[in-house]
Amino acid sequence: MKMILTISFFIVSFLSLSHASVVDFCVADYNGPNGPAGYSCKSPKKVTENDFVYHGLATAGNTSNIIKAAVTPAFDAQFAGVNGLGISIARLDLAGGGVIPLHTHPGASEILVVIQGTICAGFVSSDNTVYIKTLYKGDVMVFPQGLLHFQINSGGSNALAFVSFSSANPGLQILDFALFKSDFPTELITATTFIDAAVVKKLKGVLGGSG
Amino acid sequence: MKMILTISFFIVSFLSLSHASVVDFCVADYNGPNGPAGYSCKSPKKVTENDFVYHGLATAGNTSNIIKAAVTPAFDAQFAGVNGLGISIARLDLAGGGVIPLHTHPGASEILVVIQGTICAGFVSSDNTVYIKTLYKGDVMVFPQGLLHFQINSGGSNALAFVSFSSANPGLQILDFALFKSDFPTELITATTFIDAAVVKKLKGVLGGSG
Amino acid sequence: MKMILTISFFIVSFLSLSHASVVDFCVADYNGPNGPAGYSCKSPKKVTENDFVYHGLATAGNTSNIIKAAVTPAFDAQFAGVNGLGISIARLDLAGGGVIPLHTHPGASEILVVIQGTICAGFVSSDNTVYIKTLYKGDVMVFPQGLLHFQINSGGSNALAFVSFSSANPGLQILDFALFKSDFPTELITATTFIDAAVVKKLKGVLGGSG
Amino acid sequence: MKMILTISFFIVSFLSLSHASVVDFCVADYNGPNGPAGYSCKSPKKVTENDFVYHGLATAGNTSNIIKAAVTPAFDAQFAGVNGLGISIARLDLAGGGVIPLHTHPGASEILVVIQGTICAGFVSSDNTVYIKTLYKGDVMVFPQGLLHFQINSGGSNALAFVSFSSANPGLQILDFALFKSDFPTELITATTFIDAAVVKKLKGVLGGSG
Amino acid sequence: MKMILTISFFIVSFLSLSHASVVDFCVADYNGPNGPAGYSCKSPKKVTENDFVYHGLATAGNTSNIIKAAVTPAFDAQFAGVNGLGISIARLDLAGGGVIPLHTHPGASEILVVIQGTICAGFVSSDNTVYIKTLYKGDVMVFPQGLLHFQINSGGSNALAFVSFSSANPGLQILDFALFKSDFPTELITATTFIDAAVVKKLKGVLGGSG
Amino acid sequence: MKMILTISFFIVSFLSLSHASVVDFCVADYNGPNGPAGYSCKSPKKVTENDFVYHGLATAGNTSNIIKAAVTPAFDAQFAGVNGLGISIARLDLAGGGVIPLHTHPGASEILVVIQGTICAGFVSSDNTVYIKTLYKGDVMVFPQGLLHFQINSGGSNALAFVSFSSANPGLQILDFALFKSDFPTELITATTFIDAAVVKKLKGVLGGSG
Repeated sequence: MKMILTISFFIVSFLSLSHASVVDFCVADYNGPNGPAGYSCKSPKKVTENDFVYHGLATAGNTSNIIKAAVTPAFDAQFAGVNGLGISIARLDLAGGGVIPLHTHPGASEILVVIQGTICAGFVSSDNTVYIKTLYKGDVMVFPQGLLHFQINSGGSNALAFVSFSSANPGLQILDFALFKSDFPTELITATTFIDAAVVKKLKGVLGGSG
Repeated sequence: MKMILTISFFIVSFLSLSHASVVDFCVADYNGPNGPAGYSCKSPKKVTENDFVYHGLATAGNTSNIIKAAVTPAFDAQFAGVNGLGISIARLDLAGGGVIPLHTHPGASEILVVIQGTICAGFVSSDNTVYIKTLYKGDVMVFPQGLLHFQINSGGSNALAFVSFSSANPGLQILDFALFKSDFPTELITATTFIDAAVVKKLKGVLGGSG
Repeated sequence: MKMILTISFFIVSFLSLSHASVVDFCVADYNGPNGPAGYSCKSPKKVTENDFVYHGLATAGNTSNIIKAAVTPAFDAQFAGVNGLGISIARLDLAGGGVIPLHTHPGASEILVVIQGTICAGFVSSDNTVYIKTLYKGDVMVFPQGLLHFQINSGGSNALAFVSFSSANPGLQILDFALFKSDFPTELITATTFIDAAVVKKLKGVLGGSG
Repeated sequence: MKMILTISFFIVSFLSLSHASVVDFCVADYNGPNGPAGYSCKSPKKVTENDFVYHGLATAGNTSNIIKAAVTPAFDAQFAGVNGLGISIARLDLAGGGVIPLHTHPGASEILVVIQGTICAGFVSSDNTVYIKTLYKGDVMVFPQGLLHFQINSGGSNALAFVSFSSANPGLQILDFALFKSDFPTELITATTFIDAAVVKKLKGVLGGSG
Repeated sequence: MKMILTISFFIVSFLSLSHASVVDFCVADYNGPNGPAGYSCKSPKKVTENDFVYHGLATAGNTSNIIKAAVTPAFDAQFAGVNGLGISIARLDLAGGGVIPLHTHPGASEILVVIQGTICAGFVSSDNTVYIKTLYKGDVMVFPQGLLHFQINSGGSNALAFVSFSSANPGLQILDFALFKSDFPTELITATTFIDAAVVKKLKGVLGGSG
Repeated sequence: MKMILTISFFIVSFLSLSHASVVDFCVADYNGPNGPAGYSCKSPKKVTENDFVYHGLATAGNTSNIIKAAVTPAFDAQFAGVNGLGISIARLDLAGGGVIPLHTHPGASEILVVIQGTICAGFVSSDNTVYIKTLYKGDVMVFPQGLLHFQINSGGSNALAFVSFSSANPGLQILDFALFKSDFPTELITATTFIDAAVVKKLKGVLGGSG
């Protein structure tokens, strides 16, 4: 009996330090300002379990396109719960013959796990060494931060992989889109890549670039 | 004479770079939005020496409770001056028989210095090794980030310690409160800890948990 | 013709900066000393594509155990390629009724994606709020750094998930093992958790702890 | 023909992930709140190439002052484009006999390159070792974070250097101004530096300090 | 009975991941190489509870000196357990009239708590604002990274304080020692501080500098 | 006289904390192991002022090559003094018509200052926006981490610029070399860039690639 009474003291006095004063996470408030470290935090009182769960990767991306592939991201811009936590994820769907073109993530390293199918993946390092490997179900490959890399479906059937990143905002620069789906002036592309203007113009025609 | 005149030039031209353009600190503005790196900064013009001083640890915490102990924090939520500076502090008061129950700080390492009395402190590492030590006045102990640890008054009289953290927002997860002072469903606690439901319910009754 | 000649100059003079002088990664050399940032780096000349691929997650872990579950990690201690890259991954296998007991990762946030089956997962925050969610195939959930969390197979069949971490060395502290599979003295466990000594001793008997 | 049609699919489905969802930079919005990691980000839609270019270092600073020198910074407070990018720059102009007095940058290391003239530069380490070197055109010197350092024009003509910093907000504390151009009470300066009060008062008279 | 047997499986299969594969700390091995992030790690097998405890602050420093004060550090060079953990501590003893002269910590913010006596403490910011406060027993003050600051015993009796740092290796540059207990050439000191050569020479005589 | 005697005490007792115990920098020891944070530290006793100065940028790079340009780096692999300090620098020489081809720095943001001539510089962001600007003497431009960028001499005479980086080891991946001066299999390049095999082979012929 006496113990129970003492406990009420306990709850009042000892636990005062836990009153909303400690912040373990910062669920993104897309209406607030963002800064170099990420989005503003949603009020902790409004945070629910749903903020930490994302359903957007449960469905396969649409691979009815030229690359026969789709990337579906769950970065901080899509998945508010990862804001500020230094981690994010994306889903790669590759139909037969599908390709994730050469690209970089300016702000993160990437780790890939194959869920279905066979994937040929590779990256190029600063000293122009190429590391390429064919990956089977359950295999894992890591791509160091900022380096050019690709994934190709090298099996006969659909392939599925999940890729995780060491940042909630890894960035994604697809080489072909940077060059040929932008308004990057053709003469500057030619000057800085040695690719003939005719080739540049043809690819811009395909991908929708201008300039 | 000529020198004094020259100096006025000096002050006008050379020093222009110091006009509020350099920010050494970011005193918390609790009314602004917060983000992953901490609270918004109070306008430098409104900052005074009082923002860098905290009086809340000068008084002993109330130890008239079940654990005969009190933790009084000076984290960024209490002490605006530490916001963004990667450091914070708290006061531990332990009456005779007092105990700071098993807990973790998810975001910081901790260093403890004994000011008065004798304290038995310990932590458990990921490989389940237990490091326990009895500390006397002036002894210092460090607790690596995120590991379960505790402090017990192992002397006859009151004990006092200060603990500092490698973050302005170290977090604090007290094991018993996470389990037994929350609405964590009893069947899930039992399933994930192997502690009998009866024991869980009893502790929930004492600490105020539900579910 | 003249162009080709000029090129040989080009290769000699311009490219000199790329001679092994830039380091994009630091594959772990387990024979060298390690430091706070990770293992020493293997000589770049000895690095091959195999250093960036890990096959250890391709096979299901053995779930013929008391928890009917297995965690198979690809942290920097197992997968040399992730050393220093701020990312790692693990595989969770849960047979019917399988449970990953309450645990924390002291040094990383975690993101989980369900590959097969149904998983009930949850974590507890510093203010003792419990966030629990049932996850289906393709669902993603994030667990903020250092907080207690669990995963339970809540479907009828086997479940499989991959979990990624915001560190190559996330750490792993399993609550039950820290308490009951260690030599943590029973009287100190009781004092710091309020769990009866009899319960502690029983669980130590099951899990193999002493003290 | 068929290919072109397929491409329109491609653009619609595959590229959806790049719609303003990835943030590579955070140009400072000086009207928004700032936080420990820097200023709020300007809306990406309003960002232009001009945000990444700064013209303020193109003109020599005014060296008609007592130190015959000028420091012109392009920190995040002046150059919005560097906000959050961990880098900034400044221009040093030193007329004949010009001196950049002893100072520190509390938040960054510095690298200096001499563009014109001869500069004697040095810093002092924590163990009171002094590292001094005369630098000529094209020479580079690095000053480790937070240490007292100086630059002096040691040639006969004007000198010019650019200094870069490992932070967008390196801070700048000029020793003489901290002591003698502030309201630091003379008796406290004397007590904490052992410099005679008369000397302190004289220098305060020159530099404009009070107290 | 059957359960116990199952458990042995459990211990064999499930727990394999904890075999020395997870590193929670990096106790300094002073015989190994050190790097930018700190000292090499001592073999985990040789680590004991004693590595996490430091007794060197239990005794008052010797204040029988010109400043009537002593600083006793427990940085990573003295206290191996803090290596890589981002935290350290020191003890300040100030006899009557004692002074910790103006100094900076190039690599850390500092938090001070007064244990005994009265201390007048202050720091100067980059815009030459001086923040000074008289602190009493139990008061806490924070000093932002890299800024000049001091502590003076402003009471009649001995004073004692503990200061913690946001780094295991905060650095310590004492202004007077950098200038007057070094071989910093007098003419360069005069040129970069405007302090008369006679004053410089006198202080060098007192503190032991040369040049 | 008495004061001098007291001072000797002072030097003995108070200053003990500065005995090689504080490390402000970590000059690279190229013979020791390196780790994720950089090279091992040279023994402080062997460090001299020369370790902090680099002469390699004083001479123009050889621009008699196909790109009529040269990049001369002072990264941690060339300039031991910057190791671990988060900063480095390089020199860009561009003869008439010179071009620094499209490239990225996987680990750093870059800031460029034009010393001589006129330079057209630009970068592409993740959303395929191109930011291009013509820069004149004294102009500064910043390139966010990891994004594709280029510099072209757009004036009639030689151009010179210095570029600084927010890392001692920024990395450098030149797009054309990654693709065409490597052994990246032509069919994989074609598959992941949509550039015709014939174009790839031609460029490999020019730049020296194989595969």
